[in-house]
Amino acid sequence: MFDAREFLRAKRDRHTHDPAAVREFVAAYLRKEVHDYQVSAWLMAAFLNGLDPSETDALTQSLLHSGRVFDWRDLGRPSADKHSTGGVGDKISLMLAPLVAACGVLVPMVSGRGLGHTGGTLDKLESIPGFRTTISPDAMREQLDSLGVVMVGQGPDLAPADGLFYALRDVTSTVEFEPFIVSSIVSKKIAEGAQGLAYDVKCGSGAFMKTREAARSLATRLVATSKSLGANAAALITDMNWPLGGAVGNALEVREACETLHGRGPADTRALTLDLAALMLRLAGAEPTDAEARARAEKVLDSGAAWSLFVKMVEAQGGDPKSVENAARLHPAPVITMVPAARDGAVAACDCFALGELVVSIGGGRRAKEDAIDPRVGLVVLREPGDRVKKGEPLAELHLAGPDDGAVERASACFTIADAAEPRGEVVLERIG
Amino acid sequence: MFDAREFLRAKRDRHTHDPAAVREFVAAYLRKEVHDYQVSAWLMAAFLNGLDPSETDALTQSLLHSGRVFDWRDLGRPSADKHSTGGVGDKISLMLAPLVAACGVLVPMVSGRGLGHTGGTLDKLESIPGFRTTISPDAMREQLDSLGVVMVGQGPDLAPADGLFYALRDVTSTVEFEPFIVSSIVSKKIAEGAQGLAYDVKCGSGAFMKTREAARSLATRLVATSKSLGANAAALITDMNWPLGGAVGNALEVREACETLHGRGPADTRALTLDLAALMLRLAGAEPTDAEARARAEKVLDSGAAWSLFVKMVEAQGGDPKSVENAARLHPAPVITMVPAARDGAVAACDCFALGELVVSIGGGRRAKEDAIDPRVGLVVLREPGDRVKKGEPLAELHLAGPDDGAVERASACFTIADAAEPRGEVVLERIG
Repeated sequence: MFDAREFLRAKRDRHTHDPAAVREFVAAYLRKEVHDYQVSAWLMAAFLNGLDPSETDALTQSLLHSGRVFDWRDLGRPSADKHSTGGVGDKISLMLAPLVAACGVLVPMVSGRGLGHTGGTLDKLESIPGFRTTISPDAMREQLDSLGVVMVGQGPDLAPADGLFYALRDVTSTVEFEPFIVSSIVSKKIAEGAQGLAYDVKCGSGAFMKTREAARSLATRLVATSKSLGANAAALITDMNWPLGGAVGNALEVREACETLHGRGPADTRALTLDLAALMLRLAGAEPTDAEARARAEKVLDSGAAWSLFVKMVEAQGGDPKSVENAARLHPAPVITMVPAARDGAVAACDCFALGELVVSIGGGRRAKEDAIDPRVGLVVLREPGDRVKKGEPLAELHLAGPDDGAVERASACFTIADAAEPRGEVVLERIG
Repeated sequence: MFDAREFLRAKRDRHTHDPAAVREFVAAYLRKEVHDYQVSAWLMAAFLNGLDPSETDALTQSLLHSGRVFDWRDLGRPSADKHSTGGVGDKISLMLAPLVAACGVLVPMVSGRGLGHTGGTLDKLESIPGFRTTISPDAMREQLDSLGVVMVGQGPDLAPADGLFYALRDVTSTVEFEPFIVSSIVSKKIAEGAQGLAYDVKCGSGAFMKTREAARSLATRLVATSKSLGANAAALITDMNWPLGGAVGNALEVREACETLHGRGPADTRALTLDLAALMLRLAGAEPTDAEARARAEKVLDSGAAWSLFVKMVEAQGGDPKSVENAARLHPAPVITMVPAARDGAVAACDCFALGELVVSIGGGRRAKEDAIDPRVGLVVLREPGDRVKKGEPLAELHLAGPDDGAVERASACFTIADAAEPRGEVVLERIG
């Protein structure tokens, strides 16, 4: 019988748990010998007194082994996946998965839904008519073998203990704690069975990590914990003080992804896609150097092979290939209106958090789990930092379900116009691991 | 709808709760809008980040008002009660309640059972054949009106929220936290409706508070919180580095209590009984000065009036008056054996915690709630600190259910014999409030 009181007393008194004790704690919880009210007290004790790397690794391992762990090595090709900590306009997965697969590396990508002010890859994919994100493990394996890529949601059998822990964290105000965030992310990623794991840790006004220090700490821990569980991992810290690409909103982002897969699309979106693809190829062991990996990814993207594979994947997962071939006409919004510059000057900044919240509020995201998403709505940013504008000139297009002057005003208020402003810097700020 | 997440976040982030928020939290818990797993996370956050006096008072008030609150003022006499934090050999309540009642102050005393190594007044009373400690509120009132004293266990309707909180504290290792201890004790005491509350805060090897600082802090808080809820309160800090009186064990303590009520009995037991009685009389407003209260208590004790009232109370609560009139023959143990001194020298110290644990282990206390107690067993200490003894001379009598050489050896090991030793100091170390 596991002694939960002793375990709680240890963390209460700032002791470091033995990794075996952490594993026994999670196992006893899953056997219902430890109760929700004991786990929640431990969550608070850990939040306040800390968990060190060995405890974080043990917790991650325990969450991982609470459910199914995929293994694709018998398919005879290397595999890789990417995880983003969430941003505004982050549609990179849509291009990245088919691109890396077109380079010969398996991509068994498991994505999530929108969270708070950020969008989710599953919601974006589901704006493609017919696209199924729930796929049986056998069908996943078949599609991975035939196409090399599959994009799905998390099944209930992947790290189920993480779901239980997350539900308790949510109701006890213990969500925003790095070791818990790391164990939640890494346990699910490792369970997907990819050998190489690239993390895109967003940093800035539109990210959960507002400071470079917080982003660097999280990235370092994600990489170290992934490695402790046998994956080859690295992270990019990327700028989220400006929306990624122009489009924010589900169908609008699919449109922009299709543009990018055609070799067009915004420069930042293309660059980050190629950087992350190169990282995944290297982590999967498919290319020996960063430069070779980057060159290969660029060549494959420009050849149209990634685009073709994307269309095949859409079709394989029940989606209508015509809807992406004519992506410019995907889910048009009934009202499209311009967001005017509030004054003459240079575009200086964007409050990405407010912009993300705005898109949620016009129907592009969820306030509650059961809310439906309107794929049509969103916003396309038309300017870049440093651009000079005159008062009244359009900063962005707002795509709405109906007329909404308040939304236009709020969108305008997301942008700061100054007398002068610097152009945007690089999207990739730093690489960890 | 009470926002439990916000409340938890506030304590997590070291904020001080508004008293109203604490009351709403407890109320929402009782309405089942706040869940066990949220309360337990809060218990841990409070344990680690602290609760200030205003929060402690608000918690106590909330626990108090979760159930019935007695009020005896219509009986037309002042009332008082005493609470001891628990010691070894602490049979003071048995003399104190009838003594104070015999002085004209109502004593509606609600007591508990043995906890850990300490004995409990209810267990002692129940070694009197037939004595009932479960009495309806109406019968309590009737007996208080006719005799002025009633000694009962805590009914389920007294501060029921404290029972819920205690159950969660017990399984989450958040028991030993002063604000929780204070709120638990004071809410129940105030619910009993006594106007004057005397606290006996034990300090030393046989007490839960090992240091004078911890005892002083607890005493100060007990008094302040009691006053915040309208009671007249004060505390004595008393020495628990030596068992109180000679007897430790249920029937043995009843025997010693009867001796003391007859004006005999150990000096420390008599002195503490009179000091606490004087304090209760003063707190109830029955005597204007400490000296007058002490003189009155002494006179009433020596008159035999307290003893007469004790016998009447025993009879009123279903107990056999002959069993206390012939207390020396109450529950004789089958085996009585001497505990010998291990060496020549002076009796220097007693490990009261070990002694209390020993009495539990021979059947005088409980390891688990459902354990039965053997009223016969226990120990009578025959020596005082400073007494000179020769090796093999008896230090104590051990009363056993059957032969047990191990118990004799363990009892002997509880006593330290040195070359020289000081006599025992005063039992009352300090008065607070």
